[in-house]
Amino acid sequence: MTFQPPKGMRDLSGKDAEKLMRILQTCRNTFEKYGFVPLETPALESFEVLAAKGAGEAIKDEIYYFKDKSGRELGLRFDFTVPLARFVANNPNMPKPFRRYQIGPVWRYDNPQAKRWRQFYQADIDIVGSSSPLADAECIACVCEIMQKLGFSDFTVRVNSRIVLESLLERAGVTKTTDAIRIIDKIDKIGEDGVKKELKENGIDPKKTMKIIGMRGKSSLKELEKEKPAGLPELLDFLRCCESFGISGRIEPDASLARGMEYYTSLVFEIMLPQQKVSFGAGGRFDNLIKTLGGPDLPATGISLGVDRLLEEMGETKDDEKAFIATIGNVQDFAIAFTQKLRGNGIKCELELSNRNISKQLDYASKKYRYVAIIGEREAKAKKAKLRDMETGEEKLLKAEDLIKALKRR
Amino acid sequence: MTFQPPKGMRDLSGKDAEKLMRILQTCRNTFEKYGFVPLETPALESFEVLAAKGAGEAIKDEIYYFKDKSGRELGLRFDFTVPLARFVANNPNMPKPFRRYQIGPVWRYDNPQAKRWRQFYQADIDIVGSSSPLADAECIACVCEIMQKLGFSDFTVRVNSRIVLESLLERAGVTKTTDAIRIIDKIDKIGEDGVKKELKENGIDPKKTMKIIGMRGKSSLKELEKEKPAGLPELLDFLRCCESFGISGRIEPDASLARGMEYYTSLVFEIMLPQQKVSFGAGGRFDNLIKTLGGPDLPATGISLGVDRLLEEMGETKDDEKAFIATIGNVQDFAIAFTQKLRGNGIKCELELSNRNISKQLDYASKKYRYVAIIGEREAKAKKAKLRDMETGEEKLLKAEDLIKALKRR
Repeated sequence: MTFQPPKGMRDLSGKDAEKLMRILQTCRNTFEKYGFVPLETPALESFEVLAAKGAGEAIKDEIYYFKDKSGRELGLRFDFTVPLARFVANNPNMPKPFRRYQIGPVWRYDNPQAKRWRQFYQADIDIVGSSSPLADAECIACVCEIMQKLGFSDFTVRVNSRIVLESLLERAGVTKTTDAIRIIDKIDKIGEDGVKKELKENGIDPKKTMKIIGMRGKSSLKELEKEKPAGLPELLDFLRCCESFGISGRIEPDASLARGMEYYTSLVFEIMLPQQKVSFGAGGRFDNLIKTLGGPDLPATGISLGVDRLLEEMGETKDDEKAFIATIGNVQDFAIAFTQKLRGNGIKCELELSNRNISKQLDYASKKYRYVAIIGEREAKAKKAKLRDMETGEEKLLKAEDLIKALKRR
Repeated sequence: MTFQPPKGMRDLSGKDAEKLMRILQTCRNTFEKYGFVPLETPALESFEVLAAKGAGEAIKDEIYYFKDKSGRELGLRFDFTVPLARFVANNPNMPKPFRRYQIGPVWRYDNPQAKRWRQFYQADIDIVGSSSPLADAECIACVCEIMQKLGFSDFTVRVNSRIVLESLLERAGVTKTTDAIRIIDKIDKIGEDGVKKELKENGIDPKKTMKIIGMRGKSSLKELEKEKPAGLPELLDFLRCCESFGISGRIEPDASLARGMEYYTSLVFEIMLPQQKVSFGAGGRFDNLIKTLGGPDLPATGISLGVDRLLEEMGETKDDEKAFIATIGNVQDFAIAFTQKLRGNGIKCELELSNRNISKQLDYASKKYRYVAIIGEREAKAKKAKLRDMETGEEKLLKAEDLIKALKRR
């Protein structure tokens, strides 16, 4: 029997699991501050919904598919956007706008690559029922706040409008716009030369498109304003909202950005870190998806954070206030009461369970804790514990209240 | 196309989703205070591990099973205990005791009944590598704290030892102890008469077992002390630890308690609410499971909270500090800045996105918020907002700082 997790999946433990919890917690708190409410859809959806045209049709082969014992065709969700659209279609009369968040694992039967997993975590916010660019800007402002709280200082948000891109391509005389967009979207993977080559192979003149691909950064806005492509007013409105949110310093217009999922209709965004070719989060407007699935005709926008990539790049989390409670001799009653007092004051405590000899306890504790509170019979009698700093070797005999203060002060 | 979730599964939204988040948050915080660290195993495990003898063999038919595209036999986890045992077997050299928590959905292809779901949430803590009854007591103390924080005041914890039960049965002359235990375990489902009937059908004399089933409550301890069955010293040690934790008022010894899962070896526990026949959490010692799966020989104990049942019984959560920000006229810039200030101070805010007419905004807000901050051009000029209490109709013109104070005070 193998004890490995299934191929392409992993166990997260130790520091990694702690980082994961910190990311999920920061997402949840910030999402809620921005007025998003939780929605929990099941991990399984009917395969028909997942693979529907306009939903996951293009990545059908990556869906974990199976039949349940009654022959129902089910699949594991591959994102949170399609389940959201399904939920909205099922609850058409909710008050709008509907802002919800959902955080958890999603599954794709991808070929495992470096840093890609078949089970990975997403943290999503979406606003259904508003076509205002303020909705898009607010999603991005929320995500910027999360990135900063997680200690990322130099991220940017690439933005574009698919309508702008299509319009520019049409004006440049490109007729196969869908093919062109699909190829341009690969630029981070295959580079400019690769894009040129593929465009040629598909009968598209690279000259006509390379100028558009080059339209990056704020300076490109002037060019856009001269060209006046369709979709420009919405893009400019959106950029003004970003200014009001104080995040325009993060925003990088990029006329080549298209995003893979076929359900995006106009604005698209990607969170990037410098020197990284993959995005840490992405999203955009999907004004047709809910209707395509058979639900009401509602505009929608949202963004999804790639939790596993954040985990990879995030620094170590600050050690929390925590201690190991070591015991010597017959002190169980007092040690339990002491531990419970610390816990009641928010200190994370692990109590020695087996009264091992003290050097074994200290050896164990040194692997996981900086601070150990030692309780022997003398300490128990004095209603105190000896707080030992495992780094400096310093020891102090303290009452519970003073020990709590000492741990919180550092 | 149907927009329902798959049969036996559900979407959680609105108040239910908020309650779910509160339960998960309370579990996580309390688990961490008790020194448990997070572990995240994937939702999918190899079917071989899930259905192994001593693990999920008995509920094999309830496991969501499928083959992935490479023919690998996988299944969705049906609990967190088997994945924990698999993880420990895969990481035999971790420092012990290893205390971990895991919270999330598990899946069982059960026949959907009232209040039973095919995807449901569990919140688990386990301690691997300690055979001390202090470990069992600490798990229960932790769970008692969670129950209290969630507003449950009258729960009890039924406890027993399988060793005690087996020993009592043997002394009473029952030879088929495994069958007897399996039947006794059904007492909450089929009642005393049902148990008697099934015992007879299996060739077991009901008289010999009914006396044991009747041994409930603290008074039964005296009888046990007279009988001196095997396993009694551990049970009494455990009860003493519960006293030190100040939770012995919750503890109800019950000689009939057996618990379904076959991996339990001695102590077993169940969290009960009065007038409810189902448990809200359960656990026990599984000293053989890790070794049975092929891992090291390590004792282990733990408890699992049934999150969906808690959700069902829990009262409404207290409304958080939150507000809707309504806008009239051309005030977008100031409204965004004002909203961000509130959010920065921990107020959950939803900003009007489309500048609908004010009566539409108030109508929408009244469904979800008690407080609305209205910003018109006059308010924006004065750098204030009008705080409206939607219940009383009272209005006050306030600066952001004062509005924050007003919302936090209530």
